[in-house]
Formats: sequence, structure tokens, C-alpha cells
Amino acid sequence: MPDLPKRILVGRPVSSDRLGETLLPKYLALPVFCSDPLSSVAYATEQIVLVLGLGGLALLHLTAWVAAGVVALMVIVVASYRQTCHAYPTGGGAYAVSRANLGRSAALVAASALLVDYVLTVAVSVVAGVAAITSAVPALVPHAVAISSAFVLVLCVMNLRGVKESGRVFALPTYGFVLSIAALLAVGAWRAASGHPVLAESASYSIVGTHRTVGLLAVFLVLRAFASGCTALTGVEAISNGVPSFQPPKSRNAATTLLVMGVLAVLMFAGITALAITARVHMAEDPRNLIGLPAGEAQKTALAQLATAVFGRSPMFYAVQAFTAGILVLAANTAFNGFPALASILAADGYLPKQLARRGDRLVFSNGIVLLALLAVALIAAFGASVTALIQLYIIGVFVSFTLSQLGMVRHWGKRLLVIRDRAGRRSMHRSRAVNALGAVATAVVLVIVLLTKFVHGAWIVTIAMPLLYLLMCSIRRHYDRVALRLTPAPDGVMLPSRVHAVVLVSKLHTPTLRALAFARATRPDTLTALTVQTNEDETQQLQREWAAREVPVSLTELESPYRDVTKPVLDYVASVLRDSPRDVVAVFIPEYVVRHWWEHLLHNQSALRLKARLLFQPGVMVISVPAQLWIDYPSGSAQRAGEPVRQ
Amino acid sequence: MPDLPKRILVGRPVSSDRLGETLLPKYLALPVFCSDPLSSVAYATEQIVLVLGLGGLALLHLTAWVAAGVVALMVIVVASYRQTCHAYPTGGGAYAVSRANLGRSAALVAASALLVDYVLTVAVSVVAGVAAITSAVPALVPHAVAISSAFVLVLCVMNLRGVKESGRVFALPTYGFVLSIAALLAVGAWRAASGHPVLAESASYSIVGTHRTVGLLAVFLVLRAFASGCTALTGVEAISNGVPSFQPPKSRNAATTLLVMGVLAVLMFAGITALAITARVHMAEDPRNLIGLPAGEAQKTALAQLATAVFGRSPMFYAVQAFTAGILVLAANTAFNGFPALASILAADGYLPKQLARRGDRLVFSNGIVLLALLAVALIAAFGASVTALIQLYIIGVFVSFTLSQLGMVRHWGKRLLVIRDRAGRRSMHRSRAVNALGAVATAVVLVIVLLTKFVHGAWIVTIAMPLLYLLMCSIRRHYDRVALRLTPAPDGVMLPSRVHAVVLVSKLHTPTLRALAFARATRPDTLTALTVQTNEDETQQLQREWAAREVPVSLTELESPYRDVTKPVLDYVASVLRDSPRDVVAVFIPEYVVRHWWEHLLHNQSALRLKARLLFQPGVMVISVPAQLWIDYPSGSAQRAGEPVRQ
Repeated sequence: MPDLPKRILVGRPVSSDRLGETLLPKYLALPVFCSDPLSSVAYATEQIVLVLGLGGLALLHLTAWVAAGVVALMVIVVASYRQTCHAYPTGGGAYAVSRANLGRSAALVAASALLVDYVLTVAVSVVAGVAAITSAVPALVPHAVAISSAFVLVLCVMNLRGVKESGRVFALPTYGFVLSIAALLAVGAWRAASGHPVLAESASYSIVGTHRTVGLLAVFLVLRAFASGCTALTGVEAISNGVPSFQPPKSRNAATTLLVMGVLAVLMFAGITALAITARVHMAEDPRNLIGLPAGEAQKTALAQLATAVFGRSPMFYAVQAFTAGILVLAANTAFNGFPALASILAADGYLPKQLARRGDRLVFSNGIVLLALLAVALIAAFGASVTALIQLYIIGVFVSFTLSQLGMVRHWGKRLLVIRDRAGRRSMHRSRAVNALGAVATAVVLVIVLLTKFVHGAWIVTIAMPLLYLLMCSIRRHYDRVALRLTPAPDGVMLPSRVHAVVLVSKLHTPTLRALAFARATRPDTLTALTVQTNEDETQQLQREWAAREVPVSLTELESPYRDVTKPVLDYVASVLRDSPRDVVAVFIPEYVVRHWWEHLLHNQSALRLKARLLFQPGVMVISVPAQLWIDYPSGSAQRAGEPVRQ
Repeated sequence: MPDLPKRILVGRPVSSDRLGETLLPKYLALPVFCSDPLSSVAYATEQIVLVLGLGGLALLHLTAWVAAGVVALMVIVVASYRQTCHAYPTGGGAYAVSRANLGRSAALVAASALLVDYVLTVAVSVVAGVAAITSAVPALVPHAVAISSAFVLVLCVMNLRGVKESGRVFALPTYGFVLSIAALLAVGAWRAASGHPVLAESASYSIVGTHRTVGLLAVFLVLRAFASGCTALTGVEAISNGVPSFQPPKSRNAATTLLVMGVLAVLMFAGITALAITARVHMAEDPRNLIGLPAGEAQKTALAQLATAVFGRSPMFYAVQAFTAGILVLAANTAFNGFPALASILAADGYLPKQLARRGDRLVFSNGIVLLALLAVALIAAFGASVTALIQLYIIGVFVSFTLSQLGMVRHWGKRLLVIRDRAGRRSMHRSRAVNALGAVATAVVLVIVLLTKFVHGAWIVTIAMPLLYLLMCSIRRHYDRVALRLTPAPDGVMLPSRVHAVVLVSKLHTPTLRALAFARATRPDTLTALTVQTNEDETQQLQREWAAREVPVSLTELESPYRDVTKPVLDYVASVLRDSPRDVVAVFIPEYVVRHWWEHLLHNQSALRLKARLLFQPGVMVISVPAQLWIDYPSGSAQRAGEPVRQ
């Protein structure tokens, strides 16, 4: 069974009629779709503290306000997307909503934004998860890229197995993370209430170059901190995309799951930020600027510092780190659900290669999963597994798609209002439109802030990648349109060729050649030529002698080839036959011997392969491979020696 | 013209009948075949000084004696190989001589030794050449790997252009090097004679850890220094291999060229060593152990130090460095002549893949040239472009092949003595045999010394690589033997198939499908089936409707595929047809559409490719590609609608 390694990795093939069985109950949908927004609380606070820290202590005191802004935004976005779940039960991703309401260009912009961001989600989440591990086990710091890549590959294999099994695997780390953060916040609050406030190890560090920042620069830093904190919102749209994967009633279950996710995310993010403020966590963009950090040590994540401060180096500390790493790695799974699904829709619409629309034998979009994994690994390697570097590229795409999606919803309600006359219905629609409009404005403002504050730090890469992807998708669609036009047959069909000229290519007189001759004669062509190309005079003479000795009933035609190239003389010969009779067809028979193992192929001349590829470009030709399987004993017979093909 | 980039790089194709034109006169043969032994004087002295330096000043005084040993060995080896040139005018490489006189196993051992060493020649020479450049321009030190790889690629392209043109390109650096070394030695001698002795910049350095070494360790170090100095001998066998490339009288011209080369190499090596002793050059294996070397500076090559001491930083210094770099890079060219030629002989004998025996359109063994370049670049990258690291792997192969070649020659004269009766002839043969026997003993002793002193420093890698290569060559030969046996046709030929069953694969009803149907009908098969695999129910129903609407004169057979795989149902169907009538043949027609550009291919499902590959493994099948070139307007016609194929 040649497929054995594949089967062990991804399991047995799944029949098409089991597509319905992969639907998710709410308790499994939460880990599958929400690990991304839930997990981002693990680094969102840290990014706010890090950026505000650049502006000195005075700015650091604004942490609570910046966090409050992020919370408000999250409430708005979750409320907006709950409407989308109800309005688009067949899946209301930004692409679908934009396409339905804003037209093709807006939809493609949203799609390219989402595709770029899915790749970044995998990269950022996995790298952040590995940072949680290296914070607990600093000896692993130099291997961050290798560990991150290994996690991406594990996710890839899990997703190739199929969505339902993934849901089970992913439930434990997600619920474990929520519970361990709850424990961290509870114990931290209890210790503060009982007069033993927690202090982070970095509370005593100070940051080089930090001074009192005022005026425009301070405003800029606050906005940049807010932009960084908005990473907490990524992945919210995953549920609206995934409505069809929910058990019925699909829309209601999806909206409920989204609400639960929103409440959990807000509570955890607010709690962690409050604890970080009390514990006075300091972070530096460049750890070498951190005075007080023991020499040669890497900076710990904010969450690791809080866990150390609350639990000490107890098993609970390691549990927090393990669950954080777990959920962050799994957050990447949100993208592994989103990317292949979106890519398959785009492929079905002709904007991406058709292969991405095909379900593999486990009923998942295997090609999309593998493509995402490859892109993410490349990105992780290119940015040296640094969260701070990758996060600069992040969330631009998210907010582009948020904004377009909400704008699309505003338009959606507007169109509905034109046809609905029922008063209660109209009132609820007006309310819904207001919520989506608020969402659109808020996310558009954030998008501008993100672009302004992150552009020079790396966001420019995304602002180049997105338009390129947009153009690529347009040109792929143009290609498919052109091909479809050419493939449409004329109403009166295709001309039947007048005559068939068989040409059998001969290099040596061995079994495959004789088989090709026999097969060619069995098709009873109008003319039959045995053709050899003379690249070496001795070999050709030898061939002629054997040909004569064996009394082959077809005469041998020789072509000169002064440059020892086999392809061109054959092509010229075929073209000359067709020039004389353009309504005929030339059937080129190529004897091939087939060896059992791929590496044995390396030992045989690849000229047949090249010749076949070139012949396909010649109109009026069919290329016939006559394989001789070298491990088979063919029956021999005198029929081959007969002068004329015999009909039984 | 799709080949344009290739043509610009390697030139226009060369006709086979111009093979004679590429013969070399002596003045061009010297640079082509001798750049390796001539250039190795650039690093041989340095390696002796470096190893002796490990043992302290007392050992360093033995430099002259060690160098004298190397010179003596070189005289013996050159004399031995001049005999080979005369005895084997068709090319007397170690492989040919061993095969003729010592049998297959010895020949393959010699061949694997030579192949390994050719790769090492390229790596060591190019890296040493780049060291000459970085000694003159230290800012380039960090880019040594990239520069070395670039040089290998340049050599590769030059050799793809053909041997004669290469000879011209290579003459200038070789003769330039010889002249510039002559100038260096003359000016150095004149300054010493006139009482202004030259002093190397490292004369005042001392080496950490150096102390007076006595006893066995001293003997070992002297032997290791001798082994390192023997690098000067590499490449001597290239001329005996290349006798057929000389203009007639081939053997005499080759022997003369070898003599000229030997005299030049001995003079330069002895001169440089004498100058290095006078100038008191110090070298350290690890430059960090060199006290006196300015901080942050790389160690300069010994030759660069001598050139600085003699010429100062004048243009002459840069000329010496440039010519040294030039000839060292071209020394690699010796291997670019030797490796492809040897590989082609081995391939013709069935020990290496047949592709290596085929001359490209410029009449050179293109595949061998490219393979050598790839292996050398890999080696340079793996060893970080370090001469001192690579040189440890070097010359084991050389001395294995030297020894076997000389042993073969001893045997050769022995066999000749059995048949020759003429007294003068016998005397000269006795003398020749004595020379070769001396050569065999000397090189065998050196081989043992090299193995003992270099084994732990990296030579063990070669002692593993050579047997692996030997086993690989044996198993390739076994494969070819097995294939040849199976390819030999039975005396009464091949059975003509009874009937032809045509199967046309249908996915959609478009022009390529209609063309495939028309072509299949034109071949007048005994049965004709249009076959489709149902991977999606809606698509299949759509196909059925179109099929009926168009009144296609062949009925459509559908195959179920619950796992959405196209390959297996088709294979099973074909196998079932053949099970019923094993003497028949199934002709599988596959409609393909051909797009003009390779990247357009990426946009179409590759399932046809996979299916074709699998079908080739099924006995009794021929696979027929019916290409539809999408840029062509095919004539339409009503013939396709007719119920029965019509014969004109």
C-alpha cells in the first residue's frame, strides 16, 4: 500500500455522504473558532504596555484607558458580527458580505486582506505560543524558529484529518486556558485584597531612553498602543464565516457562541490588564534597553511575569504557561479553518487556482491547508520567530475586512428596508443598521490609526502584499474566463480527422519497441512509419542490422540530427506530415519502459518526457505512451511477424 | 525562441562532425590540464608551515626537508605518468589503467576515489582562490561562501561552452601566475643577495600553545606536514586522462606537456618554500592562536605575505594576488575536464546514470559538468569556504588512484614482457616497470601517511564516501544489467493484441473532450466507451444533460467515486476490461488542454498527470494524450455527429 505513511498521518478516506456528520455543537465550536480571539489576550496587554513604556511613566499610567478603548471596540465588533451570523446563515465572511452588497472589487479587497491576515494569524499565534514556552524554559530560546515550524506542521496534519476531530483535540487547551487565567486573576485579586499586592519581576527595571513625552508624540504613542492592543480583536469574524459548520439552528448557535466568546475575551483582557497595572509590568521593544534584566537573559512575556508573581515557580505557573502556549498554538487553528474555506470559495469563483476548491479524501480542503502551513513557516523563518516584529504586519488586514464587512451589512439592511413593510421588522432593521454603521465607523477609524502608527514599523509590507494579491486574483480570473471561452465547443462539434498516420519512435530494437509496433498495428492506421533519429552513426547501423535480422514488417525511417537532439527532428517530421494533409491526425507511439521505483527512473534518459511535452504543443497530434512493465512477462507470438495486420 | 537565455550563456549548438576540431595544441593544453598542479604551489607551502608550526620553532626548521620530500615524490609521479601517456594513447586515467590490468573492483575503487577528489579539487581550489582575494581585500571575508559559489557557476558555464574556448580563456591566468611567481622569486632572491632580506609580517608573531615537541609526536607532525604538502601533486593524472584531447602526435605531446608542467611546479614550489623560510612566515591552524595578529584581522595567506614583503602594497602585489586567485579558480577547471569525462566512461560502462554519457548540444558532457558544480557548491557551503577544513578531506582520493594506476602500469609492463622478444624493447620495458613500481611504492607509502595523519581531522568522511560511491556504482550496474535482460525481445517477437478497447475519459463536455472522442473514433477501435467519474452529483447530472442535448453518438458510462478520487475507479475499470479479455489492449484517451506558459499549467488540475502516471503501471494499456491547444481554432464539422465512423 503506497499510501501508508499518508494514511497513518491523516487517517482513512472519508466518503462524500458523510459531509453532514462534521457539524459542530457549540461546546466544540468555541475552541475551534474562538481560540484566536480568546488567546490574543495573552499578548494584547503586553503590546500596550510595551508601546506606552516608550513614552515614560506618565504615559504608562494611561494603560487602563487604552485598554478600555479596546474593550469598547470589542463590544461593538462582537455586536456587529452577531447580526451577520443571523443575516448570512450560509456563511457571512467579509468576502461573502462584500460580494453580496458592495460588488466584486470590494469583495476581492476584503478577500486579499483576509488571506494575508490568516497567514499572519498562524505566524503570530504560534510564535507567541512558543514565547510562552521559552519564558518558562529559557534554554529553548535559540530554537524558537524550529519549534514554531514544528507546531505549524502539527496543526497542518491535525487539520488534514478533518474539522470534527480537531475540535475535540482543541477543546482541552482552550478551556484549560480560560480556567487558568480565571485562577490567576482570582488569586491575584485575593492577594491584593488581603494586603499582599503582587509585584512583577520587571517592576524595578527601567527602560533606557525613556523620558517624559508630551504633545503630539505622546498622542501618537497612545494611538500606537491602542493599535497594538487591537490585536485582541483578531479572529472575531471566524464564527460568522463558519456558520454552516454549526449544528442547527445554525445562526442562533453561532450568535450565542460569539456572545460567550466576547464576554470571556473582555473579562480576561480587562483582568490581565488590571493585574499588569497593579504589578507594574515593564516591557521594552528591544530587551537590550531594559536596565535591570539579568545579563544574557531573554525578556519574559507579561503573562509569564504575572504568573510568576502570583504563583511563584509552582506547578500552577507551569500550568498557566502550558495552557497559554497550547491555546496560542491552537489559535492558529482559527486560520486553518478560515483560510482553506475562503480559498475554496475564491477558487470556485475562479479567483484562485481550482485545486484549492477540491476536497481531499478526508473531506477537507487539503491543498489550502498545506498552502497556509507553507506560507506561515516561511513568514516565521523570515522574521526570526519574533512576536514584536510580526505583530507590526498584523491586524491591518483584519480591520480592512471588518470595515468592508460592516459597510456591506449597512448596505444589506438598507436593501432589506426597501422591501420590508412590517413596522416591527423595520424598527429592528433600523437598529441593526445602526449597530453595523457604528461598527463600520469604529473599525474604519481604527484602521486609519493602525496604518498611521504601524506603517514604518513594517505595516508597509502588508500594504504592498494586499494589492499584489488583489491583482493576482484578478489575472487568474481573466485566465479562467479566457480558457472557458475557448473550451466551449462550436455548435456543430468537432471535425472527425480524415486519416490516422501512426509514427512509432524507435531508439533500440527491444521489447518495448516491438510492443509499441504491435499496438500501433492493432489500431489499423492508414499509414505506419517506424522512425529513428540518428544521433550516433554506429548505433543506427547496429539498429538497421537488427531490424533486418528480425524481419520487422515495417520499414525503418531515419532522421539526421547533427546536434544530437532527438526532439526537434521528430517535431519537424510530424509537422511535415500535417503540412501535406492538414485534416489528418498523427499518432505518435512512444515505447516506454516502466520501472517499479521512482529512483530507478532517474537512471533512464528523460528524453521521452521532454519529447512528449513538446509534441503536445503541436496541433493535430496525439501522443501515445506504450508502457512495457519490466516486471511482467509478456506473451510472445508469431503474429508480430506477419506482413499485414490481421483482423480476427 | 524559448532557448534564448541558454544560447546566450553557452553559445549555438555544435554539430557532431566538429568533434575533431576541439583538439588542443600544447600551449593551450598546459593551462587546461595543468592549472591544478601548478596552482597548488600557492597553498602547499603554507600547509607545511602551518602544521610544522604546531610543533614549535625546532620543527619549523625542518620545512626545507619536508619540501624536499614533496619535490622528490613529484619527480617520481611525473616520471611514472609520462609512461602512462605513452602506453595509453586513448586516455590512461587510473580507471582505464586499473580496468585493463587489475580488474573491475580495483577500477571502481580508483573511479570512486577520482570522482570524490574531482569534487574536492573544485572546492579546495576555488576556496583557496577566494582566500587570495580576501587576503588583498579583507572586507570580502564574510562573503567567502557566496563568492566561491559564484566562481564555481562561472566555471560551469564556461565549460558548458566547450573545451577549446575554455583553453583560450584559461591561458592568461595560468601563464600570468607562472610569470608573476617568477618575478616574486627573482626580486626576493635579488633583495636577499643584495643584503636586504625580506621579512614576512608574521615573522614577529608567535603561536599560543607552541612548545618544543619531541619524540613520536614530532615525527607525527613532520609526517602530517609532508601529507599536507603533497596537495601539490593533485591533478598530475589529468594529462594522462586527457591524451585524446591533444593534437597528434597525442602521446608525445601529452608527455612533453607533463614534463614542462613538472619542471615548472617543482621550481615554483621549491622557490616559494625557500622564500617562506627566509622570510620566516608563521601560520596558525586557528588564527585566534596567533599572537601579534592585529585584532579583528583575518590571517593572510603565506603567498600574500611574501608578495607584501617583496613588493609592498604596489600594483605588483595586487597582480600576484589576482593571478593567484585566477589560476586557483581555474585549477578547478582541471576537475571540470576530468569529472565529466570519467563520469561519461563510467556511464557508458553502466556504472553511473546513462545521462552522464550523452554529449550536450555543445559537444560537452553537460550533465556531468552541472553535477560537479552542484556538488562542489554544496561542499563549499557545508565547510564554510575554509581551505584548512576542506584540505583535510583532500588528496586521499588522489593517492588511492595514483597507487592503483601505478600498480596497473607495473602489471601492464609485466604482460607486455611476456610477449615482446626484442631485446632493446625488453630493456626499456624493464626500466619503465621499475619507474612505475617506484611510483606505486612511493604513493602507497604516502597514502598510508595521509590516512594516519589526517583521519581524525576529517579524512574519515572520505573513507566513508568512497565505499558508498563504490556500492552505488555496483548497484546501478546491477540495475542496468537486469533491465537489459528484460528488454531483450523473445525470438518470436511480441503478440499482436486481439482487440482494441478505446476508453475516452470525460470530465466536462468541452472542445478537448469532443476532439478526444473524434480521434478515438478515427482509430476505429473494436469497442468505444466514454467514461466519467462521478465526484460531485450535480456536475455529473449537468454533464448528462449536455451529453443528451448534443446527441453525442457514444453513450456515457459513469463510475461511482465516494472518496472523490478519479484515479482508482478508472484503474479498476481498465483492470476489469482486461480481466475479461487478457489478450486485448485498452487505449485510454485523455483529453488535455495545453496552455502556452508553464505558470498557466499551475492553474489547472493536475489529476490527469497523476492518472497517466498510474495507468502506465497497468499491463495491457496504452495511454493517449489528445492535446487541445487553446490558442488554435479547430475546424468544426458535422462528421462528429454521425453515428458511425466513416472511412473515406
